[in-house]
Amino acid sequence: MVEPAKEPLRVALLGSGVVGSSVARLLVESADDLAARVGRPLEIAGIGVRRERSRADVPVDPALFTTDAMELVTRPGIDLVVEVIGGIEPARSLILAAIKNGASVVTANKALLAEDGATLYAAAEEAGVDLYYEAAVAGAIPILRPLRESLVGDRVQRVLGIVNGTTNFILSRMTESGAGFAEALDEATALGYAEADPTADVEGFDAAAKAAILASLAFHTRVPLDAVHREGITEVTAADVASARAMGRVVKLLAIAELVDGGVSVRVHPAMIPATHPLAGVGDAFNAVFVQAEAAGELMFYGRGAGGDPTASAVLGDLVAAARNRAGESSGPGESTYASLPVRPMGDTVTRYHVSLDVDDRPGVLAAVAQSFAGHGVSIQTVRQEGHADDAVLVLVTHTAPDAALAATVEELRALEIVRDVSSVMRVEGG
Amino acid sequence: MVEPAKEPLRVALLGSGVVGSSVARLLVESADDLAARVGRPLEIAGIGVRRERSRADVPVDPALFTTDAMELVTRPGIDLVVEVIGGIEPARSLILAAIKNGASVVTANKALLAEDGATLYAAAEEAGVDLYYEAAVAGAIPILRPLRESLVGDRVQRVLGIVNGTTNFILSRMTESGAGFAEALDEATALGYAEADPTADVEGFDAAAKAAILASLAFHTRVPLDAVHREGITEVTAADVASARAMGRVVKLLAIAELVDGGVSVRVHPAMIPATHPLAGVGDAFNAVFVQAEAAGELMFYGRGAGGDPTASAVLGDLVAAARNRAGESSGPGESTYASLPVRPMGDTVTRYHVSLDVDDRPGVLAAVAQSFAGHGVSIQTVRQEGHADDAVLVLVTHTAPDAALAATVEELRALEIVRDVSSVMRVEGG
Repeated sequence: MVEPAKEPLRVALLGSGVVGSSVARLLVESADDLAARVGRPLEIAGIGVRRERSRADVPVDPALFTTDAMELVTRPGIDLVVEVIGGIEPARSLILAAIKNGASVVTANKALLAEDGATLYAAAEEAGVDLYYEAAVAGAIPILRPLRESLVGDRVQRVLGIVNGTTNFILSRMTESGAGFAEALDEATALGYAEADPTADVEGFDAAAKAAILASLAFHTRVPLDAVHREGITEVTAADVASARAMGRVVKLLAIAELVDGGVSVRVHPAMIPATHPLAGVGDAFNAVFVQAEAAGELMFYGRGAGGDPTASAVLGDLVAAARNRAGESSGPGESTYASLPVRPMGDTVTRYHVSLDVDDRPGVLAAVAQSFAGHGVSIQTVRQEGHADDAVLVLVTHTAPDAALAATVEELRALEIVRDVSSVMRVEGG
Repeated sequence: MVEPAKEPLRVALLGSGVVGSSVARLLVESADDLAARVGRPLEIAGIGVRRERSRADVPVDPALFTTDAMELVTRPGIDLVVEVIGGIEPARSLILAAIKNGASVVTANKALLAEDGATLYAAAEEAGVDLYYEAAVAGAIPILRPLRESLVGDRVQRVLGIVNGTTNFILSRMTESGAGFAEALDEATALGYAEADPTADVEGFDAAAKAAILASLAFHTRVPLDAVHREGITEVTAADVASARAMGRVVKLLAIAELVDGGVSVRVHPAMIPATHPLAGVGDAFNAVFVQAEAAGELMFYGRGAGGDPTASAVLGDLVAAARNRAGESSGPGESTYASLPVRPMGDTVTRYHVSLDVDDRPGVLAAVAQSFAGHGVSIQTVRQEGHADDAVLVLVTHTAPDAALAATVEELRALEIVRDVSSVMRVEGG
């Protein structure tokens, strides 16, 4: 065990919401284990909160709470700062001040990292401190450290992630019960899986920030948040889910980062994946990240993507790593962007498509539809006719084609007299 | 990009079999990427082989091959040594000599680590160098670094691993086709999934070494290899697999490490797990490790557990990490055994059991059987009668009970006149 004489490392904690409370509680409850693992005790120097209060569920001296977070992070002798406030400001200013004060920083702030990670990294590099953020993507699942360190000798080709629990819960419910989006969202809200304003989740903003972070680490390049193509799940219908099932597929909201022809494609959108794909079985609010690498082949990382304790697990892992480095007067790997790859426009992205059309059921319809695909260079892999008589539905799955070619095809199909409606267009991923 | 003027780090590679060849090839093919990621180029200083030869599939200068591995690892200026020979000797002597010579070591040698990891760790600690071995467990899957670093702020409660591809392939075939063990082993051999002498795999020796390593890292304690309870899959019958299926379960060979009442239980044995468990879908020769931790909850890591390239991916990840440390004049976390937990005897291990009995079909049979369980304090959760008339089969699943109590129950059942045969006894894990 650690001798009590060892000088503690001083930790400033910013935020005492769900995650902050878990972090504080675990720091207290696991103090002996953490001290043994770091080689020095971790001591909470203060907890920055928005309003003065004493939290009964956080077992610390109430005197540790302060509303002056800037004073806390700039105090002399602060070794480590944990930021779990979220949002761009004041989080960014606090982190930059902490780094300038010589502290290593652990954050769960995906929005800030996706928006302005380069500034934070540059500051950390200059100060010779660590900037860790495992909790920012997929909660408790160790995925950023494996990408940054375990797979660093390999060449990652593709990352497919289910990185938003709210949308995965909604799509899982739609798959299990046949419910529509609105009904499944109501259920998610009632069970606490969706926030009162679910926009960030259901429109894919949350997943897009995570996609940018995953792509940057996987491909050693910077991916600006606004270069991430983003579509949410609000347009996914019960009919899409049923049509997927009929083809042996399930609908998931995927964060995708791919290396293609010397560039990266980074996007978030609903997609149909084979029911046999390892990601297909990831239900409820769970997260998973599927990685294909040149030498490793297929890997998957699965677990809880949100919640106080799971997120705190990731924060504390980073905290111990940063504390070990501090105790050993070293620092972990910094930003790696040497590859400087271009981000490919969405129109150039090549994937497969599932297209459902309501059509007149008369001779020549398939020929006209097929002609439209062929005219844009999109070749068809399978066609299925569902329904009958007046009410025919054509379901087509294409071979790989550029997104722009498919978009042009769909526009032309909508204008065809024999096509009553293009009822569903969804990308097909995962083989 | 890295400036060419930077001094290379010199790598000695021991072994040029399947894994060694992949490592050498990737070191050459990915040289620019690796140099950028490390900050300095990695240069192959020599390749230790058993017999002089030039390998056409390893694209290096033939002059690099040497049969004097000891001379290679003790050369001045060797920074990093990769050991992929396997076995206890000469691997141990070579690694210890390399460490004494000041090199960091990356190894895939599970047998040596399980047998004598403490000696290697102590030497690395004394010399201030790294000892990394991600490739020793579950091939390409990043699991040791996540346990050592990502989950280091959490408290791991249980690890369940499918860590042997040969046995998983055999059990998957038995599940899919209804084949018996011998038939499935023949198929595995024909397809190259089983070695000519499959003992190390099918008797669980390989998995036991991995279980010892996983348990040591998960619980910060030393687990001697001979403290790992080990049972292989040679006794698993088609009837066991069918009986599991009838109960909604599948049979897997599991490496299990659990924290129980301040001690650890470490064991390898076939077990029935629910068909809905994340490990149940891990088919063919894939590996997966399921981890339960106090804060993180349930996690799973999935991928390829063997093969040249997947193993080389893990080796190169470690090599880059060790090289970064060397370039930065630091070292990663060493052995952590502060918890010093006792290993619990198998008889004290508490789990659930699936027991199939061929019995006389006459009144009083169930009462007699139930009495036998009750007499040893083993309570029954479910009973199912299969078959009929003269040929009745009772399938019982118990609540959790100590292994010793179950063994005593089974011994007594075998002696009962009404019990013709105890046809299957298998542990039930994973909920």
